Amino acid sequence: MKEDKSANSATEGDELSKKALKKQQKEAEKAAKKAERKAQNQAQQDKAQEEDVSIGKYGDTGLIQSKDKHTERKFTDIKNLNPSLKDQTVWIRGRLHTSRAKGKQCFIVLRQQSYTVQGLVAVSEKVSKQMIKFLSNITKESIVDIEAIVKCVPSQIESCTQKDVEVHVEKVFVISAAKPQLPLQIEDASRPVGEADENALNIKVNQDTRLDNRVLDLRTPANQAIYRVEAAICKLFRDILTSKGFVEIHTPKIISAASEGGANVFTVSYFKGNAYLAQSPQLYKQMAIAADFDKVFTVGAVFWKDIITYDNCLVFRAEDSNTHRHLTEFVGLDLEMAFKYHYHEVVDTIGQLFVKMFKGLRDNYAAEIEAVRQQYNVEPFKFLDPPLKLEFKDAIELLAEAGITLGEEDDLSTPDEKLLGKLYDTDFYILDKYPLAVRPFYTMPDPNNPKVSNSYDMFMRGEEIISGAQRIHDPELLTERAKHHGIDLEKIKSYIDAFKYGCPPHAGGGIGMERVVMLYLGLDNIRKVSMFPRDPKRITP
Amino acid sequence: MKEDKSANSATEGDELSKKALKKQQKEAEKAAKKAERKAQNQAQQDKAQEEDVSIGKYGDTGLIQSKDKHTERKFTDIKNLNPSLKDQTVWIRGRLHTSRAKGKQCFIVLRQQSYTVQGLVAVSEKVSKQMIKFLSNITKESIVDIEAIVKCVPSQIESCTQKDVEVHVEKVFVISAAKPQLPLQIEDASRPVGEADENALNIKVNQDTRLDNRVLDLRTPANQAIYRVEAAICKLFRDILTSKGFVEIHTPKIISAASEGGANVFTVSYFKGNAYLAQSPQLYKQMAIAADFDKVFTVGAVFWKDIITYDNCLVFRAEDSNTHRHLTEFVGLDLEMAFKYHYHEVVDTIGQLFVKMFKGLRDNYAAEIEAVRQQYNVEPFKFLDPPLKLEFKDAIELLAEAGITLGEEDDLSTPDEKLLGKLYDTDFYILDKYPLAVRPFYTMPDPNNPKVSNSYDMFMRGEEIISGAQRIHDPELLTERAKHHGIDLEKIKSYIDAFKYGCPPHAGGGIGMERVVMLYLGLDNIRKVSMFPRDPKRITP
Repeated sequence: MKEDKSANSATEGDELSKKALKKQQKEAEKAAKKAERKAQNQAQQDKAQEEDVSIGKYGDTGLIQSKDKHTERKFTDIKNLNPSLKDQTVWIRGRLHTSRAKGKQCFIVLRQQSYTVQGLVAVSEKVSKQMIKFLSNITKESIVDIEAIVKCVPSQIESCTQKDVEVHVEKVFVISAAKPQLPLQIEDASRPVGEADENALNIKVNQDTRLDNRVLDLRTPANQAIYRVEAAICKLFRDILTSKGFVEIHTPKIISAASEGGANVFTVSYFKGNAYLAQSPQLYKQMAIAADFDKVFTVGAVFWKDIITYDNCLVFRAEDSNTHRHLTEFVGLDLEMAFKYHYHEVVDTIGQLFVKMFKGLRDNYAAEIEAVRQQYNVEPFKFLDPPLKLEFKDAIELLAEAGITLGEEDDLSTPDEKLLGKLYDTDFYILDKYPLAVRPFYTMPDPNNPKVSNSYDMFMRGEEIISGAQRIHDPELLTERAKHHGIDLEKIKSYIDAFKYGCPPHAGGGIGMERVVMLYLGLDNIRKVSMFPRDPKRITP
Repeated sequence: MKEDKSANSATEGDELSKKALKKQQKEAEKAAKKAERKAQNQAQQDKAQEEDVSIGKYGDTGLIQSKDKHTERKFTDIKNLNPSLKDQTVWIRGRLHTSRAKGKQCFIVLRQQSYTVQGLVAVSEKVSKQMIKFLSNITKESIVDIEAIVKCVPSQIESCTQKDVEVHVEKVFVISAAKPQLPLQIEDASRPVGEADENALNIKVNQDTRLDNRVLDLRTPANQAIYRVEAAICKLFRDILTSKGFVEIHTPKIISAASEGGANVFTVSYFKGNAYLAQSPQLYKQMAIAADFDKVFTVGAVFWKDIITYDNCLVFRAEDSNTHRHLTEFVGLDLEMAFKYHYHEVVDTIGQLFVKMFKGLRDNYAAEIEAVRQQYNVEPFKFLDPPLKLEFKDAIELLAEAGITLGEEDDLSTPDEKLLGKLYDTDFYILDKYPLAVRPFYTMPDPNNPKVSNSYDMFMRGEEIISGAQRIHDPELLTERAKHHGIDLEKIKSYIDAFKYGCPPHAGGGIGMERVVMLYLGLDNIRKVSMFPRDPKRITP
C-alpha cells in the first residue's frame, strides 16, 4: 500500500502547486502512517490471537437461563478438596473472595459458604497473559466456575480453610458478576472481635451497616454458622418433642381480642374492623390440650410491641430498657403438655429437652460453633445432666448468703439470675415455685402455700429463656383468679370457655428461639441471630 | 327428746288454757314427728354407709393442683389394651364418651384421642349401688381416672376401637368434669358423611358450629387424625429437604413495602407508621440464596387479604369466587434452591420431594388416613414415581384432543387442570414451561422461545398446590422485565438490589400447606384442615 500511494503522487506531480503538493504529500504521509499503524496493530492482534492459548477457556458465560444442562461437569464442593484428590481435575463453583495478580501469575481465593481454597494461575503453554488479565479483573464476590487441578502444597495455607491443597486453574467463567463497589467488605465483616476492645465491632462494620447490606453480611463464616445453629436448634426442638409423642400444631397470628396488655399488641386493619397480632400461641396450645391432643408444640412468629422480654404469657412483665434482647417480631418455640398428677412431669420433660438440645449441638455442630467462636470469642456453653433445679425460696437464701437481700414475693433481677448460675458453674438452670404474686392470673397456685405458684423459669447464661407454669384448667378458679387480678372477664370469655367441657391438668411454656441461639453461642445482640430483624426502628430489608 | 318434751308439757298443764294446750300439743307432735324423721334418716344413712362397700373407690378428686405425684399408678393407654393384658389391673385416664346405666349395672365407653374401650360396672360385693349411681351421673366428656381389670369378650365389640377386650371398673374418680349441656355431640360430629347425600354434613353439625366449639369438634377421630397428618406433612417436608442439604430459615412477617398487589395485603399499625403482613417469604428466601445459603426452606404464616390462590408470588392471580380453598392466614411451605445450569435441577428436586412425602404418608400414617376415610369416604391418593411432568404446550394439545381449545398464551382453568390428571390416572403431576405472559415479572424467560418461561406449577387432585419458577437473578434483566410489567421500580428497589453483588441462578416455589393436607386427604373445605381458620368473616376462636 505504501508503494502504491508514492507512485500515484509522482505521476500527478506537475499539475500541482508546490503548496498543494506539500499538503498532498503531508496527507499522504499521514495516511501512510495510519495505514502502517493499522497494519502493525493487525499483525500484533493476529500474533496475540495466535499466542492466546487460553481462548475458549475463560470469559463471561452470559446469563444462565437454563439453556444447557452441562451434565458432564462434575462439581466438587470446596469443603471436600483435600490431598486424596491430588492431580485430579475438578469443577468448582464459588465466589471470588480475593484475587492478587503479580507479574505473570495470579493468586485467588475461592469461597463457598464458610469454606475457602487458594487458586493459582500462572502464564504457561496452557495459560495466556490474557486469561490472567481477565481473571484479575473479575470483581470480588462474583460467582465463577473454574476447572482446575488439585495440587498438594509444601506448607499449610493458613489463610484458607483448605490448608493442604491448592487448585491450579485451567478454565474460568464468570457466572454472575458483582458490582465493583461493595458497601462492606466480607473480610471486615468477618474480622474477630478483640476481647480487650469492647468497641472493636463498631469500628469494623457496625450493626446497621451489616443489616442494611444483609445479603453481603450473611456471607461471613460466623453468619453462615449462626443460621445453621439456629436451624439445628429448631430441628432438635421438634425432633426431641416428636419422639416423645408431641404433635406439631399451627396457631393463628391474627387474633380478635388483645386480651390483657392491649397496649402491647400490634393492630391490623382487618376488612371493616380491627384485629391484633398474637403475642403468644398460649390460648391455642391450651385449646389443643382441651381438645385431647395431649402434648403439642408449635414453632412460629410472635409479635411484641413494647420493650419486654418474651414470656409465654397472655400478660407481660416490663423489664429494664436494655434492648439488646428485644425484637418486635421473633420466633416462639412453644409447647404444652397434659400431665397426670404433678406439673413436675412437664418441668422434667422441658429440662430434658434442653439438655438433649445442648448435647445435640455440642456433638453435631462443633464446626459451626467453632466458626462463630473464631469471630466472637466466648466461653463454651456449660450444662449439667440432669439440669440444676432450684426452688425460688432456696435461690433467695443463696442470694442472701451472697449478700443480696430480697423479699419472698419479690421477683429476681437479671444480675441475680446471672449470679445464681455462677454459683453452680452451669449456664443452664431451672427455678421452680415462683411467688404467686409475680405470675399471671392463669398460674396454678401451690396447694400447700397460698403465696407460691406451680410455675418455673429456665435460664441460659443467667438470662430467662422460658417462662412457664401449670395453668388453671378449672373455669371457676380461673374466673376467681382473673377477678382477683382485675381482668375484664368479658375479654377472656373464650379463654375460660375452653375449659368448660373437661380439660386435663396441663403445663407448658414458651421459648424465645433467637434468645436460645444468642445465649447458647454467647453473642451480645439479638440482631446477630435474627436473619432479618424487626425492632421499633427497623422493618427493612 | 320426745319424752322430755311430753314430761315438760304435763307439769305445766294446769296453768294453760285449753286452746293454748291444744296448740302446745300440736307443736309437740310436730316436733316429735320431725325428730322421728331425723332419727330415721340418720339410721338409714348409717345403714347405707355400712352397706357402701365402694367407699373411697369413687368420687371427685378435686382440682389437680400437683399436690400428689401418685407415682405408684401405672397408666395404660387405651390403644394398648388387648388380650395380652387379660385379668391384669390397669389405670386408665380417659374421657367418658358415653354411659348407660341399666338396673344394677352400667356400661361406659372411655375415649382417649381416637381410641375407645368398653367399661362395665355391676353391683357386687366389691361395687356398691352408690358407686354405679355416681358413675351414671358423670357428665359426658368429663375426664376420669379408672382402675379396672382387663377382660376378654366372647364376641367383638364393634362400637369401640378395642374390640377384643373390655374393662371391669373397680375405681372411678372424676379428674375434670364437663358441663352437662354440650353445644355439640362428639358422635354427631364424628358421623360418616354419606356419599349419596351431599348435604349430610350440614344436617349433622355444620362447619360454623364446629368452629365455634372447636375444642369439642377437634375431639372427633377424623380431626385427631387430620392434624396428625398435617404435622406429618410438615415433618416430611422439613426432613426430606434437610437430608438434601437445605437450611431452615425464618423470614419476617412484618414488612415495609407491599410491593405489587398492595390492595391485597393487610396493613399493620407500626409505631408512628404503617407496615404490612407478608404474603410470601419470597424476597427473603431469594436474599438467603444471594447470601450463599445455597438451599433454604421456611415454614411459616402467610397472609392474603383477597380471594386468591396462594402463589409463591409477589404478585397474585385472581381466581373465581369459590372460596372453599381460601383462607386469609395459612401456612406456607416455601423453598428456594441455587442450581448449576438448569432449573430442572430444582423441578426434579421438588417433584421427588412430593413423591417422598406421599410415600411417607402412605407407609407411616395409614391408621390416620383410614380414620379420616371412616368419616369422609374419598379415594386414596394416587401418584406416579417418577412423577408425571408435562410441558404446558403438550397439555394444551392434550386438552384440544379432549375437545377443549385454548390459546398458547392462555392460562388453564381448574376444570382443565383436573382433566389432565384424569387423563394419566394420577393425583399428582407437574406442568412445566408456562407462557411468559401469565407469570410474574421476575420469572426467567425461556432462552429458546420468548413467549415461554422457565416456570412450573404442580397439582394435587387437579388443584394447584405449588407455583414456582427460575427467578431472574440479574438486576438489569429484572429491571427491564419490571418496567415491561409497569411496576414502580422504586417499590422493588431492595428486591433488585439483592442481586447486585453476585447471585447464583436459582429457582423455588411456595406450597400451601393446608391445601396439601386437604387435597391429599380428599376433603372438600380448607377449614377442615386449619385448626383455627381465618377468613374474611372469622377471626375467632
